Amino acid sequence: MRLEIAGLASLPEVQRDDDLAALIREAAAREQQPLDVSVLVAVAQKIVSKAEGAIANLREIEPSAFARSWAAEWGKDPRLIELILQQSRRIVRMDRGVLITETQLGLVCANAGVDQSNIGDPDLATILPKDPDSSARHLRAALGCGAVLVTDTFGRPWREGLVDVAIGVAGLAPLRDLRGSADRHGRRLSATVIAVADQLAAAAGLAMGKSDGSPVVLIRGFEWPAREGTARALIRTPETDLFR
Amino acid sequence: MRLEIAGLASLPEVQRDDDLAALIREAAAREQQPLDVSVLVAVAQKIVSKAEGAIANLREIEPSAFARSWAAEWGKDPRLIELILQQSRRIVRMDRGVLITETQLGLVCANAGVDQSNIGDPDLATILPKDPDSSARHLRAALGCGAVLVTDTFGRPWREGLVDVAIGVAGLAPLRDLRGSADRHGRRLSATVIAVADQLAAAAGLAMGKSDGSPVVLIRGFEWPAREGTARALIRTPETDLFR
Repeated sequence: MRLEIAGLASLPEVQRDDDLAALIREAAAREQQPLDVSVLVAVAQKIVSKAEGAIANLREIEPSAFARSWAAEWGKDPRLIELILQQSRRIVRMDRGVLITETQLGLVCANAGVDQSNIGDPDLATILPKDPDSSARHLRAALGCGAVLVTDTFGRPWREGLVDVAIGVAGLAPLRDLRGSADRHGRRLSATVIAVADQLAAAAGLAMGKSDGSPVVLIRGFEWPAREGTARALIRTPETDLFR
Repeated sequence: MRLEIAGLASLPEVQRDDDLAALIREAAAREQQPLDVSVLVAVAQKIVSKAEGAIANLREIEPSAFARSWAAEWGKDPRLIELILQQSRRIVRMDRGVLITETQLGLVCANAGVDQSNIGDPDLATILPKDPDSSARHLRAALGCGAVLVTDTFGRPWREGLVDVAIGVAGLAPLRDLRGSADRHGRRLSATVIAVADQLAAAAGLAMGKSDGSPVVLIRGFEWPAREGTARALIRTPETDLFR
């Protein structure tokens, strides 16, 4: 298998209410990168949120007493803490200034995905897209590519540093289940479900960078069976989660 | 940036005490894949362990009462549980038949990296290489490539499915620290340290598969400053770990 991973270098800065699919199509055409069913397109959450207007204005947020108290203790903006709490359905850890929550969609991440980078106004923050699977489905239909991943950069317990994961999926089963298949010696693989969508997101992340890379990355050479797919399959159920 | 990720298809099955670097060099030569300083080579832990003889014989293991009790409760092989405990310095979770430990090297993973797949004898299990950074350094020196990652497939809290991570690193700083750099609008990125070695490992994992792919993957087109590097940098210190 030979994969090719390339960022779209000519994508313009995405603004609120831009037609993101049109911008991607135009950049791909300029760069002579055909978008067909063999191509998987990874799109950074940040530009999906911007194009969809998933942007909160901190000036309009009235922090609760709880948000104000935590913000004061850790030197944070209380409006930002309030926004994070509003985006969350459960707090997983709240310690040493770090706020890890389960978002309304069930994703567990720092700050519920609320982010002030690359937005250009200190009173604005992007929030996660309302339905990243739906965002991915719409982009896939508009682009005519094989699959779309909406990716975000998450921290992990136990390991330093952030990696990209898939928070929205269309056109691909995000898990590849090898249980029941055999290894080279015929031994049944008992617990091997690979999170291919997260591996693809991480691979795309290498070409995304954070301040310099491109937020849209094309992956060629990956073969997968066409499936509708949903990033919800990547979220552990409470029953199998030992780290709630 | 354009990355190319390709498995070495002609690598033979690795056996105990094989000269792994020679096998990789020969396969790369056969496949006309030059190994130079622009190339990053990802090698699956399994074949590193095999070549280094990091293989335990379960027939020689005398399970403790603790191992026997847990094994009986969850229908496991008590010798395997004993081996996992011997490879561990701390148990992180031990619940519902799942054993997540901190290995002697500080890695947190299921079963301390003990694995019975792809070994061909039900009484044998591979354990993690004694010093995966050193394994990576030796391979890098012998191959003449830019960097080597020893990768393993780990589960994650909160998210379903396994992804590959780097447990040994040579020739690359595994973390890319963007703190202090600015976003496109000049806003300082405050908490952005990217685990590039884990992103590279995940990308390589796409070409590794588990039963069909190749355990050695070449990555071209990635640019990085040459550093000695160590996978220890990827392990969270207790002070910053909220999920011990």
